[in-house]
Amino acid sequence: MSDDENAVRFGILGCANISIKLCKAINKAPNSKLHAIASRSVEKAESFATEHNLPKTVKVYGNYESVLEDDEVDAVYIPLPTGLHVTWAVKAAERRKHVLLEKPAAMSVAELDRILEACEAHGVQFMDGTMWMHHPRTAKMKEALSDAQRFGQLKWIHSCLTYNPGPEFLKSSIRVKADLDGLGALGDCGWYCIRAILWAVDYELPKSVLAFPGAILNEEGVIISCGSSMHWEDGRSATFHCSFLSHITFDLTVLGTKGCLRLHDFPLPFEDNLGYATFLEASELDYAKIEPGMWCPKPNEHVVETQFSQEVCMVMEFADLVQKVKRCEMKPQKTWPVFSRKTQLVLDAVKDSIHKGYQPVQIVS
Amino acid sequence: MSDDENAVRFGILGCANISIKLCKAINKAPNSKLHAIASRSVEKAESFATEHNLPKTVKVYGNYESVLEDDEVDAVYIPLPTGLHVTWAVKAAERRKHVLLEKPAAMSVAELDRILEACEAHGVQFMDGTMWMHHPRTAKMKEALSDAQRFGQLKWIHSCLTYNPGPEFLKSSIRVKADLDGLGALGDCGWYCIRAILWAVDYELPKSVLAFPGAILNEEGVIISCGSSMHWEDGRSATFHCSFLSHITFDLTVLGTKGCLRLHDFPLPFEDNLGYATFLEASELDYAKIEPGMWCPKPNEHVVETQFSQEVCMVMEFADLVQKVKRCEMKPQKTWPVFSRKTQLVLDAVKDSIHKGYQPVQIVS
Repeated sequence: MSDDENAVRFGILGCANISIKLCKAINKAPNSKLHAIASRSVEKAESFATEHNLPKTVKVYGNYESVLEDDEVDAVYIPLPTGLHVTWAVKAAERRKHVLLEKPAAMSVAELDRILEACEAHGVQFMDGTMWMHHPRTAKMKEALSDAQRFGQLKWIHSCLTYNPGPEFLKSSIRVKADLDGLGALGDCGWYCIRAILWAVDYELPKSVLAFPGAILNEEGVIISCGSSMHWEDGRSATFHCSFLSHITFDLTVLGTKGCLRLHDFPLPFEDNLGYATFLEASELDYAKIEPGMWCPKPNEHVVETQFSQEVCMVMEFADLVQKVKRCEMKPQKTWPVFSRKTQLVLDAVKDSIHKGYQPVQIVS
Repeated sequence: MSDDENAVRFGILGCANISIKLCKAINKAPNSKLHAIASRSVEKAESFATEHNLPKTVKVYGNYESVLEDDEVDAVYIPLPTGLHVTWAVKAAERRKHVLLEKPAAMSVAELDRILEACEAHGVQFMDGTMWMHHPRTAKMKEALSDAQRFGQLKWIHSCLTYNPGPEFLKSSIRVKADLDGLGALGDCGWYCIRAILWAVDYELPKSVLAFPGAILNEEGVIISCGSSMHWEDGRSATFHCSFLSHITFDLTVLGTKGCLRLHDFPLPFEDNLGYATFLEASELDYAKIEPGMWCPKPNEHVVETQFSQEVCMVMEFADLVQKVKRCEMKPQKTWPVFSRKTQLVLDAVKDSIHKGYQPVQIVS
């Protein structure tokens, strides 16, 4: 945790599992400092602080309001269930706390717009918690996709993000409850797929989406498994599949006319604790160097070293923006809110397509 | 080439590039013998024989009819453009030649049914030329998918098969001509994807398919790029993408509740000439053996050794069936024709879905 008195002081609303990761990330980020945590009861917050060895200086609150009332808190991280995002993110913005909001950002783009409007009105920075965006590997992959000589023009993207948390989760987890995380697997997993696809096309919104027939919903109508195709005017297309019913997969494939980029761990590098991450890249330019016995060259494995894990990179990037806003060097940066909003727009359209019986849905920004 | 006088004597109709591979395969297969080749002109056939060092004993014909009239020919391999399959496969069956037919089998299931009826009426074996089906790796992968402890229940399949043959191909290749290979990329690439998906589900036909919007067709209406989702009653689903516009990809991913099978070279092993092939398999059972620094175990790479390349395996399997039929030990085996017909049924349904403006199409066998 930073000794710098200019370090951004974070308050965390909620002691979810993901909060452990963020406590550690805030602790490691040189420009950040954990100032307070809150749970719905002070006992739960204290037990979280003890269990995770939080410094005694961290304030422990028994309700979320207290964090927002604490004048020393610069920014909040909100890992609450999605259904609560709009309430607490808007409240936080109104108290002039900068907002780092766990994904999925909101239950709908209408809700997200209320959050973004509150942030803009009160001059605070907004960012969603899609951590892999901040890994140095992501920037290296974008370089590879931008290399027209090797990759050519982008034609097609596919992403698959699944895990199988088991029957108890499917029965009682908040992630499958309509009033808590009502977007289910589409919000929890599909968010990453949609973001990855938008990232690959430089955030140009598709013209339309068409959900795959056969989405699986639970009794409350929460999506357990679904997928969709996405279509751009110029012929580019993408597909994704997300599910709580299959073994873990974290796949992203981006196909160009001349090359291919592929990885099986895009939201979280397999070697997360080893200081590096990898991705595979192939190009027709490599056909000159086929190894004996092969008819096709092996893809190139690119290794990207990193000093910090992706969640630390995210906190550092967010805190850097917050510091600049605090010092009045800039207004809150708009790129991250726009990425969130586009992701949510597509997510809403996929949900809409499912609810309309798998009809195509046009995207209107 | 076999000296065995019981070896199946093959005639090849057409000197396509793929014929070179089959000449070599027939040469290597212990139960097969290349007896004759034909082209539309004797000069072309002779030049093919010379160029590829075919033995002097191989008869060289300037028309396809001559092969069918040659009483010493037991079986024909037909690599002609798809539009000619029904004519020549039916003629071959009528002359009691066993039929090894290059994929896609026909322009439609109606045409394929004429071929299969002719084969049945004349007591000859039919098999399509989907070579990877015969690689020993394919049987090993099926074992992995059948391991309920490690793989669980199958939930989802994705296949992607693309290559980018370039503008000259797209302008003038027979593979994009309506009257020759009128199924375009769907026939050339999608055939493999559909077969792989059906293989994974033990050939249970999906209830319906829905093509992805945005298929790309050329001026003649031939498919250059397309894809589809496929749906089964019990909630299993699959997607595939095939295209002549993107860098080469040969992907198959099969997801179960507990495990995942994946490979990037399913129609043709990268190490085709090295006597082995590999595939990746992961299971939740392996979470006990996570390596330090990883949060997820690495998938297991399975190596399958093979004495013969997959095209030799195919020829051997086909010739074995032909020999048994010739010795009157059995009637022509029906499994391979059924696999071909199911593949063609789904392919037709995808084409139908595209032509109906991306409406769901029910599969009726």
